[in-house]
Amino acid sequence: MPEVLVEEARRFMEDSLTAVGAPVSEAKAQADLLIHADTVGHYSHGLNRLEFYINDILSKATDPCAKPVILKESAATALVDGCDALGATVGNFCMEVAIRKAKEAGVGWVAARRSNHYGMAGYWALKAEKQGLIGLSFTNSSPILVPTRSKTSALGTNPIALAAPAKDGDNLVVDLATTAVAMGKVEIQVHKEEPLPAGWALGPDGKTTTDAKLAFETAKLLPLGGAEETSGYKGYALSALVEVLCSGLSGSKSTHQVRGWELDSQGGPPDLGHCFAAIDPGCFAPGFEDRISNCLQHWRNLEPMDPKLPVLAPGDKERKNYAETQKRGTINYPQKQYEAYFKMANRIGIKPMQIV
Amino acid sequence: MPEVLVEEARRFMEDSLTAVGAPVSEAKAQADLLIHADTVGHYSHGLNRLEFYINDILSKATDPCAKPVILKESAATALVDGCDALGATVGNFCMEVAIRKAKEAGVGWVAARRSNHYGMAGYWALKAEKQGLIGLSFTNSSPILVPTRSKTSALGTNPIALAAPAKDGDNLVVDLATTAVAMGKVEIQVHKEEPLPAGWALGPDGKTTTDAKLAFETAKLLPLGGAEETSGYKGYALSALVEVLCSGLSGSKSTHQVRGWELDSQGGPPDLGHCFAAIDPGCFAPGFEDRISNCLQHWRNLEPMDPKLPVLAPGDKERKNYAETQKRGTINYPQKQYEAYFKMANRIGIKPMQIV
Repeated sequence: MPEVLVEEARRFMEDSLTAVGAPVSEAKAQADLLIHADTVGHYSHGLNRLEFYINDILSKATDPCAKPVILKESAATALVDGCDALGATVGNFCMEVAIRKAKEAGVGWVAARRSNHYGMAGYWALKAEKQGLIGLSFTNSSPILVPTRSKTSALGTNPIALAAPAKDGDNLVVDLATTAVAMGKVEIQVHKEEPLPAGWALGPDGKTTTDAKLAFETAKLLPLGGAEETSGYKGYALSALVEVLCSGLSGSKSTHQVRGWELDSQGGPPDLGHCFAAIDPGCFAPGFEDRISNCLQHWRNLEPMDPKLPVLAPGDKERKNYAETQKRGTINYPQKQYEAYFKMANRIGIKPMQIV
Repeated sequence: MPEVLVEEARRFMEDSLTAVGAPVSEAKAQADLLIHADTVGHYSHGLNRLEFYINDILSKATDPCAKPVILKESAATALVDGCDALGATVGNFCMEVAIRKAKEAGVGWVAARRSNHYGMAGYWALKAEKQGLIGLSFTNSSPILVPTRSKTSALGTNPIALAAPAKDGDNLVVDLATTAVAMGKVEIQVHKEEPLPAGWALGPDGKTTTDAKLAFETAKLLPLGGAEETSGYKGYALSALVEVLCSGLSGSKSTHQVRGWELDSQGGPPDLGHCFAAIDPGCFAPGFEDRISNCLQHWRNLEPMDPKLPVLAPGDKERKNYAETQKRGTINYPQKQYEAYFKMANRIGIKPMQIV
């Protein structure tokens, strides 16, 4: 697989975004979001998504120069109009408001409408965590989750993220799609030309399929838990919970009204809804970070079923991937993805991404 | 199965609690919590649990006369010492504080320590929903969830609940254990003498078992999502998220430090941690209840795979069960459970529950 320096991938993302009209500050913010995903190993949400963002700007679904505005606020809350800005622009604006309010009132709870795809949910939760707060982040998305018993999809992957600080720079990071897997994971299997594990997605006949391409085209993911017998209705309910906090609070479109997100998406701004929250542990019992560290250590030290597969705490896999990427200084992208971006570079007139 | 008038079941619960020293007000509150579970069809959390609460009072793990106190507060937060009071006493106290703060600051976020088992998580979320707010409720519990790759259990069923009001008295209620199922569901299979579906629980050998009694004795539940291949690590991560909000914020014991909850539990107060939140939709975009209703209707009207099994919105099953119980006016309890409570009535010197 082509190997690219992390800083070259970042340069390429920034150049791509500025080439289609994003101000440098907003291009840098959006690139940082995508680079984060690639460096922690969630390739589905990194470079893999760049062309979608570029095309959304070109089709005027996204206005890369727009600035979000607060429409309404109280001591602990704010309602934000994302004004169709880039997802990273909206995310940074909202999380900063949430953090400020958490420091003043103990909690900051911010809902945004008229936004675009905001990348990895966990990235936003981590912004609060870096300031010693608990960060929470949720978003709705395009309809792709098939509710239990339904023939058709109606909810999004609607992720839930929480990040909490522990001692000595350690932390606990939860970041999960409420579907059995994120659609990006199916995409990656398509790129790798590998089948899906059973229980991830349905085919057009409404039955589980292991054909990655068919699953990607059908776009019907099972909720977390899978079938009804194994509590798939819980994944469906969690996706509904995210909908309440995102479209419910913000007045954005509900997922079932959101257009699909494809490489050549038409139909204008998606009007996605997000929710960001920060909670100050300093308003609660002393010793928060000690208790989180104690849990992390307890879980990491549990005896594993297979000695070769140690028990991980939530966020450990991404931490390990991040350290490895930093050490290596490079990211490996699938050949097909590299080629697609070579073409895109020519299309928008920027220097292609250089291979090491 | 023996059929009991709802009001007779309630009378029996109240008499049981006052017989072992609970004030009438606290006995009524605790009975209401258990009756709610039985009337919505979650029998695992209703009468089924009464004897546990009674024994916890007799062993002095629970002080039925204790009143919770606020230790610390800010505009949107409060830290509460539950003082080993009954779960319902702590739940009512904390949710009232959360509701008051939500009405003042937009959000009320309350963490409690030194509490006892607080029944169905959804009951507490509904307290806020009845006042036009979004209600959230979380609790840690005894270690029973086996983290992905681990040999032993380390987290609780750690439930997540959210209730949101919709138009004309309708609502959306999410209430789920972060394990594949709640332990109470396994108990019910034991009482019914029926096997478990695969993927709920592990046997002593660390492999999935369908033997309900063996699973109940082993007390090792799989996280929501099941095995690692089907994203069981997400259920584990959600259980960790609940731990952050409960023991993390409150300073209670973390789940792995909590004693087991058995009929003859010894070892004193469990020092459980809960988290309660209320969010005022009035601080966000107008039309919240319309949007929730629109989602509920969209989901309920989805074409089902099997015409005999309509698609339900989260909370619909419980709503239907509640309406049926109200119409019938009675609850059916398993014969073995009825007999156990006949014995308990004699033991604590109260009138046994009367069969219709």
